[in-house]
Amino acid sequence: MSFFEIQKSDLLKGLSLIQGITGRRTTLPILSHIFMEWKENTLFLIATDLETGMREKIKAEVHEEGKASVSAKKLYEIVRELPEGRIQIRKKENHWINLTCEKSIFNLVGLDPEEFPSLPSFQEKLFSFIPGQTLKEMIDKTVFAASSEESRYHIHGILFIQQKIYGREGLRLVATDGHRLSLIDRECSPIKGIEKGVLLPKKGVLEIKKVLGEIEEDKEVGIYFNQTHGFFQMGSSIVVLRLIEGEYPDYEQVIPKDNDKIIKIEKEGFYGCLRRIATMASERLEGIKLSFQRNLLELTSFHPDFGDAKEELDVLYEGPPLEVGFNARYLLEALQVMDTPFIMMELKDEGSPCTLRPETSRGPSDQLCIVMPMRI
Amino acid sequence: MSFFEIQKSDLLKGLSLIQGITGRRTTLPILSHIFMEWKENTLFLIATDLETGMREKIKAEVHEEGKASVSAKKLYEIVRELPEGRIQIRKKENHWINLTCEKSIFNLVGLDPEEFPSLPSFQEKLFSFIPGQTLKEMIDKTVFAASSEESRYHIHGILFIQQKIYGREGLRLVATDGHRLSLIDRECSPIKGIEKGVLLPKKGVLEIKKVLGEIEEDKEVGIYFNQTHGFFQMGSSIVVLRLIEGEYPDYEQVIPKDNDKIIKIEKEGFYGCLRRIATMASERLEGIKLSFQRNLLELTSFHPDFGDAKEELDVLYEGPPLEVGFNARYLLEALQVMDTPFIMMELKDEGSPCTLRPETSRGPSDQLCIVMPMRI
Repeated sequence: MSFFEIQKSDLLKGLSLIQGITGRRTTLPILSHIFMEWKENTLFLIATDLETGMREKIKAEVHEEGKASVSAKKLYEIVRELPEGRIQIRKKENHWINLTCEKSIFNLVGLDPEEFPSLPSFQEKLFSFIPGQTLKEMIDKTVFAASSEESRYHIHGILFIQQKIYGREGLRLVATDGHRLSLIDRECSPIKGIEKGVLLPKKGVLEIKKVLGEIEEDKEVGIYFNQTHGFFQMGSSIVVLRLIEGEYPDYEQVIPKDNDKIIKIEKEGFYGCLRRIATMASERLEGIKLSFQRNLLELTSFHPDFGDAKEELDVLYEGPPLEVGFNARYLLEALQVMDTPFIMMELKDEGSPCTLRPETSRGPSDQLCIVMPMRI
Repeated sequence: MSFFEIQKSDLLKGLSLIQGITGRRTTLPILSHIFMEWKENTLFLIATDLETGMREKIKAEVHEEGKASVSAKKLYEIVRELPEGRIQIRKKENHWINLTCEKSIFNLVGLDPEEFPSLPSFQEKLFSFIPGQTLKEMIDKTVFAASSEESRYHIHGILFIQQKIYGREGLRLVATDGHRLSLIDRECSPIKGIEKGVLLPKKGVLEIKKVLGEIEEDKEVGIYFNQTHGFFQMGSSIVVLRLIEGEYPDYEQVIPKDNDKIIKIEKEGFYGCLRRIATMASERLEGIKLSFQRNLLELTSFHPDFGDAKEELDVLYEGPPLEVGFNARYLLEALQVMDTPFIMMELKDEGSPCTLRPETSRGPSDQLCIVMPMRI
């Protein structure tokens, strides 16, 4: 009889990583399922929403190989409650499975595993390897700026594109929602298929970030792209993302070239000040006003129901007086992804986008946020 | 000019405790406000939803006494973001207040503080004192069983009633939602006004629990009741609850007297088993089946979409076979409030309520949960 044995903690970890993929599209019932295949002392778990797919590889003692497809959520709920120890899973007739662990016995309804959509196949030899922590940092520092509206699919994606950095090979990530943009460059070995840039769905990129948070800090991540998909190998996980088709906005054209008002600001002080002034911004627009004078920034906000707020902050600024309105949250989220004690803010006038960069000893920084101004 | 100074951390603690009371009833705008009165080096904060009222007393440096009424939520949001240090609050014209802290300046819209509903007055000398941890334990072990439907007001309340315990003075708390009941007795000094029992609203009792979680463990709590209200003095907080009018169900009649099937069960094992079997109970009814045989309990469940589950548990039971259905969550919540390694379950037949008690060395236990059976 087809069955296998597995450690509860191993199975739970795999199920936990894969949960986020399943059950979002309820039109096709099998997409709320997890596909299981056990062979050669390995259990493979596969989940997909047809845009993002994921495969987990887990050590198991396979007595006779087999396949099954059962509710991902229900299996996870059950395994979570089981005592630590070994679980036996048996294939039953009519696609059901039988799961036992110590004195617990579960019979789970299944669907025909042959009907489960297969993942695009990938070739191990095409992977380039980059440090997992580099990829995680790059995602962390951009993904927040991508649009969350799936309908705006061309800016719902995160752009991955090859980028020379001081003459060396590198990777650039760019995300925007039309009101702000975040960009980061890091040196790394060349990745196949991203010469002209590829666009990955936000949700899938967030799944990659989740898996990266689970693997060991010093692990390398395998990556490559073909015409239709991106492949990410992280520890025992493979994540496959369907690329977004269509033209990404010409982001290079958006990067301001002549912002000549340059302000150096202590980051933590600016962050706290923005949080305070934002409490009096209207909930809908979140608008606050920044007034720059020589070495001084005054922040103000006004709420029609609650009142107003004002605060002064010492900054380094030599230019003429300037008043600009911004969405406070966009500035806060940009500061959150900058790691340096000081940041550089570059402005032109009250109608042009500003840039925020970490202050580094190197010339042009390898990280950038652009925020559009707003009328206050 | 009327103003006072206060430590940020002191004000924040008071505002945080009082937040839960405000803003629930939006029909009367001033109820989303907090009433502030500063006099004699003290700031009083008052909030009320007309059913539950709360007064916080905070040390402050008062330069000239005054009163104000401002949005509780907005003031809390602002104070939370302020740096540690001293805050100055000034009364302005048209009921506004001005709040400054270091370089931050806020002007907050206010309403006429004279229009803020006053709390019922209380007399310090009427308080009886009981240990805060005793009251907290009694609330923790009963309040979960009270109905959350405010429309069912007579069982939405928690009954506080005087109770002799082995001939000594004590307090009993009882809560029920019609499907289960929880009761606890603890010795303590007599409390004025509860001879015939008083009924307190669940929401207000939860606010008391929240405050009890904040005061020091060994603090005493002052309590008394008059015809219409209950008064609780906890550290620097006073909570005033309007009593629920109406007849509480005759709970003593509900306590089974002739449950002759007595089972002793190891609590943690039972709890884990119930959690597992509950994963296969239907979401709506949460029903599972318990089958008792000599020294053995078999738990089973069945879900129309997902399958079935079964587990056996060793118990101490000498009686005849018996099958009873229960809502798994009611059993789990009862076990959660029992502190002993073993619990006693007492049954009569498949149609009668069962009781659960902690197993203690004393005769009748001072804590009891009753759960109604269900047809599975």
